[in-house]
Amino acid sequence: MTTLTSTDPRTGTVTETGIGLTDEAEVSRIAERAASAVRQIADRGRGWRSELLRAMARETEAGRELLVATAAAETGLTEARLNTELTRCVLQFELFADAVDEGSFLEAMIDHSTVTPLGPAPDIRRILRSIGPVAIFGSSNFPFAFSVLGGDTAAAVAAGSPVILKAHGSHPLTSRNSFDALLRAARSVEAPEGVLSIVYGQRTGAQLVAEPAVKAVGFTGSLEVGRLLADIAARRPEPIPFYGELSSINPVVITADALAGRADTLPEDAAASVAGSGGQLCTKPGVVFVPAGIAGEEFVARFAAAVAGAAPHAALSARVLDLFDEARGRMRDRPGTTGIEEASAEERGGSWFSSSVLRVDAADLTPETIEEAFGPFAVVVTYDSEEQLLSALTMVPPSLTATLHLGAGEHARHDELIRTLTDRSGRVVFDGFPTGVRVSWAQHHGGPWPSTNSIHSSVGVTSMRRFLTPVAYQNAPTEVLPTELHDDHTGIPRRIDGILQLAAAEETS
Amino acid sequence: MTTLTSTDPRTGTVTETGIGLTDEAEVSRIAERAASAVRQIADRGRGWRSELLRAMARETEAGRELLVATAAAETGLTEARLNTELTRCVLQFELFADAVDEGSFLEAMIDHSTVTPLGPAPDIRRILRSIGPVAIFGSSNFPFAFSVLGGDTAAAVAAGSPVILKAHGSHPLTSRNSFDALLRAARSVEAPEGVLSIVYGQRTGAQLVAEPAVKAVGFTGSLEVGRLLADIAARRPEPIPFYGELSSINPVVITADALAGRADTLPEDAAASVAGSGGQLCTKPGVVFVPAGIAGEEFVARFAAAVAGAAPHAALSARVLDLFDEARGRMRDRPGTTGIEEASAEERGGSWFSSSVLRVDAADLTPETIEEAFGPFAVVVTYDSEEQLLSALTMVPPSLTATLHLGAGEHARHDELIRTLTDRSGRVVFDGFPTGVRVSWAQHHGGPWPSTNSIHSSVGVTSMRRFLTPVAYQNAPTEVLPTELHDDHTGIPRRIDGILQLAAAEETS
Repeated sequence: MTTLTSTDPRTGTVTETGIGLTDEAEVSRIAERAASAVRQIADRGRGWRSELLRAMARETEAGRELLVATAAAETGLTEARLNTELTRCVLQFELFADAVDEGSFLEAMIDHSTVTPLGPAPDIRRILRSIGPVAIFGSSNFPFAFSVLGGDTAAAVAAGSPVILKAHGSHPLTSRNSFDALLRAARSVEAPEGVLSIVYGQRTGAQLVAEPAVKAVGFTGSLEVGRLLADIAARRPEPIPFYGELSSINPVVITADALAGRADTLPEDAAASVAGSGGQLCTKPGVVFVPAGIAGEEFVARFAAAVAGAAPHAALSARVLDLFDEARGRMRDRPGTTGIEEASAEERGGSWFSSSVLRVDAADLTPETIEEAFGPFAVVVTYDSEEQLLSALTMVPPSLTATLHLGAGEHARHDELIRTLTDRSGRVVFDGFPTGVRVSWAQHHGGPWPSTNSIHSSVGVTSMRRFLTPVAYQNAPTEVLPTELHDDHTGIPRRIDGILQLAAAEETS
Repeated sequence: MTTLTSTDPRTGTVTETGIGLTDEAEVSRIAERAASAVRQIADRGRGWRSELLRAMARETEAGRELLVATAAAETGLTEARLNTELTRCVLQFELFADAVDEGSFLEAMIDHSTVTPLGPAPDIRRILRSIGPVAIFGSSNFPFAFSVLGGDTAAAVAAGSPVILKAHGSHPLTSRNSFDALLRAARSVEAPEGVLSIVYGQRTGAQLVAEPAVKAVGFTGSLEVGRLLADIAARRPEPIPFYGELSSINPVVITADALAGRADTLPEDAAASVAGSGGQLCTKPGVVFVPAGIAGEEFVARFAAAVAGAAPHAALSARVLDLFDEARGRMRDRPGTTGIEEASAEERGGSWFSSSVLRVDAADLTPETIEEAFGPFAVVVTYDSEEQLLSALTMVPPSLTATLHLGAGEHARHDELIRTLTDRSGRVVFDGFPTGVRVSWAQHHGGPWPSTNSIHSSVGVTSMRRFLTPVAYQNAPTEVLPTELHDDHTGIPRRIDGILQLAAAEETS
């Protein structure tokens, strides 16, 4: 049997994992078993789902030591970062458990029968239900938070969908250990078979997306692979939604006033956001716009030095390093682009980044100058005027985030700039940096193409909506309805005859 | 210049409309003009949008006489039906105006900055915004409610999206007169250019879906054309969501107890649902399951007689009649299928339906036996046992609706049947019929493939969600935020730090 290997990118050491590739027949069996779990999950109700999510939080926490050590060896990310990421997963499972208990996500609505100018209108009751089994593709750069233990898993389980995980090839042992933790959680609440499954091997991905029993796909990864899988999803006999988080440049714009006011911290703070986790975050600033002139030059010099001076970091894999070197090479070769302050990769085996910054004048910027590249690296663009800045910004692809550093009270003078950044991103950050995504109710992790292909978020409570679809009941006997649609149910917020009503407990608080 | 013709399907009379085909360059100009309206619409705020929707209701009502007369001549639908449909549009515009005023659709959420186990968390505020210009394809069978004056238009305007209407070729004059009414409404509230546009000609459809400025498509029509356009939407350099309402069989199941209790009315009520509007509704029951035996035979005979005895009805177009005759011919030729009680089309020119019923035993049912066919026609299936019924139901494609007639208190005995129907439809109707869709908050008009390709509704208030997408603001100065995200705003329901709160006015009521 072919088994997967695991490579420590810090040393290049290859380990046999003993994990076999999931064969085609097994993938189909897994998908069908997942389909058969949909009803059983629905029958257990919301309370059980939140118990399962809390058990997932508990078992993730219980597995911390092994999980972090395994992930460190497979990704080259630091234990500090991995511990934070694991904590995020624990809190994320708990947040979704809270959201399941709260019940708003069901969007329960009741329109009682009435007489309208069109005649008698029947009783209509609407609620959201699971879309069915969901295939989830983890990404290499978040071995926990966008992988087996990640937000898509939490959101799908919260939605009542069976989850089939496609393990990422760059961290198979982390995936397996993570999945073991989830299985312990599932067993602790006597979950039916098929609630959680995992498949291994690159080929399983395309098959999963094509499996008839799979009804939606959550994907975090490259634009190229995402587009390929999206095409498979669209061409199926039964097309299914494909939710892709695909690519993001995350422009950061610094105004002259902002630079004047915070020259002492901005270069180093920006560099920390660029170089943190080896610059391998979807929200890493890939381009920073600063005003031309003395202050701008000083920013460029200090920013470049800080990026180059960041602690050496291994790439997630040899492939990530290759892609990085190629992309940077192409960008460096564009007319008008200059490479500065390059820190050479250390010669210590494994896949280590050389960090650096490129610079270009806004006048020389073209759509080709800026590519997404995972690594401790950014392009600095100097601009002469707001007009030139606005024009340059249209050459940056729409992104998950856009960031603006303003002077105090300066926003009124930059209306057009703020609107441009808002139109071209899913999250606008003021006077901060886009890395470090808060997982909460209001978070939105999404954005216009090519950052995603979705009108939904892939982070935060609202990401559940991707895996839910409505059903309406017309003149149904009470006994047939989900509990939450009974007239006397007061446990969740609902809209009754067009009026939003809070849950009973909330009303009295 | 090539101009469109309009055909009265009742007589076959062809009229020159004087309406020219929109050429390629003009379609592009229209799309770009729509894109430029997005910001202007946003700037006018919600209050203005609800004014616009109320003006649309007013001008639709003001145009009633002309609109109904024109539509009757282009569709062959009765004036009674068309008057009802127009009233539905008026109420629909008002309902969406109410929803815009109410503001829940914005899904406004505020998570104040705080300290979490992961460290300081920034202030995050989320709201939904327009996805951008929306292309809307009307259908032939609802010249008002699923056309220029229809639900997609109302939903898109409510969402703040500029609308580009693709006029349906079978009712060009109705489309133009309807659009004139909308333009009068737009002018009355000084709408910016590009808020509402219309294009004519079959070729404009594919171009519209491919236009870079178009950001979503609402489509009601055939599975075949829908799939074609969905493919164009998916293959664009920037893929966009395509919301298709495509095909529906709408099974009706009658149990022995239901038949025993309501034998005096069920055959004629079912026939009225099948033959109403010439059987040209997306929610028309295409197949009716009744128990084999004496009561079932009596149902079949009376049902078939009632369908055949319905008032003669013209088809929407010669093409609809051809498709109907072909589909019925194929179904009649399936092994085990018998045609009964055929009423011949009257010989009076134009395109008139011959109404009829086919029957087949559940044991002989195959997936090919049942096709969607617009016309006064249904297949009656007799079943021997619930087991046989359940197996037969899996041969009916998932639909917008599924209907179950039960005896009093009988639901507990039919759990599996109810679940099967619920799993395979977007709306489950009890002891009624699926035609006559209530337009309200809780309505869901959607369903599993092939009835739609969407997790959203195309009817009712929630259909707005198709044309909205979130944006999050991180640590934004108050002045930069939409009014609804200001801390002191109390005009709409919002979720603050995870807790849902009603609007101030509602709290005190």
